[in-house]
Amino acid sequence: MPNRHFAQTQYPILSCLSQRWSPRAFDPARTVSDAVLHRLFEAARWSASSYNEQPWRFFLARREADAANYEKAIACLIEPNQAWARQAPVLVLTAVSTRFTHNNTPNRCAVHDLGLAVGNLSAQATHEGLCVHQMGGVLLEKMRETYGIPAGFDPFTAIAIGHPTSPAAVPENMRQMETAPRQRKALDDIVFGGQWESKSGIF
Amino acid sequence: MPNRHFAQTQYPILSCLSQRWSPRAFDPARTVSDAVLHRLFEAARWSASSYNEQPWRFFLARREADAANYEKAIACLIEPNQAWARQAPVLVLTAVSTRFTHNNTPNRCAVHDLGLAVGNLSAQATHEGLCVHQMGGVLLEKMRETYGIPAGFDPFTAIAIGHPTSPAAVPENMRQMETAPRQRKALDDIVFGGQWESKSGIF
Repeated sequence: MPNRHFAQTQYPILSCLSQRWSPRAFDPARTVSDAVLHRLFEAARWSASSYNEQPWRFFLARREADAANYEKAIACLIEPNQAWARQAPVLVLTAVSTRFTHNNTPNRCAVHDLGLAVGNLSAQATHEGLCVHQMGGVLLEKMRETYGIPAGFDPFTAIAIGHPTSPAAVPENMRQMETAPRQRKALDDIVFGGQWESKSGIF
Repeated sequence: MPNRHFAQTQYPILSCLSQRWSPRAFDPARTVSDAVLHRLFEAARWSASSYNEQPWRFFLARREADAANYEKAIACLIEPNQAWARQAPVLVLTAVSTRFTHNNTPNRCAVHDLGLAVGNLSAQATHEGLCVHQMGGVLLEKMRETYGIPAGFDPFTAIAIGHPTSPAAVPENMRQMETAPRQRKALDDIVFGGQWESKSGIF
């Protein structure tokens, strides 16, 4: 995995965070073992959540272990994502509970907390030498129908997981995205003090 | 920090994830240095987001460096959270951009991606020996007015950051929560196969 994909950080952070990036070029020849998948989902499972609701749900699709199930998952992606994601040996679809179990009121933080759990999964995957590419580009109603997602839960995203490979593996129109420099807003543009867009005073 | 707070994992995961927990008992005598805060926000900054929108915004309030600003932040929490959170030396309030910059359409993943960024911050904080307690219990309209959060952005959560201390430091009615065993759903209850609540086959 070439270092140019890693974050060029201003301050040193954990390698499981700085080495995370979202490739489109996955190596179709390298699978992910069940032992590694155990650790990825265990990491997600121990995330924080509002009232410990744990609103996250995952559908696992492994290309080698169950090709039919994998094709079901692929068919829930928008076509531009299908083009590259089917190189990844593992696809995960996500769903989220929309209400609190303890009182049946709407859980305003449910989708946020799904993000926390997927962030944990992503950090663990990076530590395992894997790459994760999350996709908002999914067919939500198709996901609901395909997987029988009941009322009270919403389908949300898809996640491709695998080992990265050369950009030559993806369609030509996507190669530039594989090698473009990583960019982020400046810290003063995301961390404010006591007013919107005021300086925090620490940078 | 007593180990009973750490996750009792079935499978081994990164310590920055397994050692994360959300105390109410923060040590008011131990501050957090600017150098550590740099790393926390740098970690958040390098999170993934849909179309690299980076929808997360943070308001930083340090009790020692700026007491007036800290009180502003405290006043945006619901009262049960104020009771314990003011022991923490650092409070962060969060907001999120609701639309994509590139085409001004609604960003369905914005709140999810805020969760990803806060998850990064939380992992880095855990690695630094800190604890993070996220709160959905905030006064959203008060946050908007207090900080001048403009249209197109929504106030979302608060985050207390500091070093944990003895449960004796929190009001008596909260002490049990400090020492209760950590609980999570079983992996088969959150990771499914090709249908809702079907087994994934890996556990």
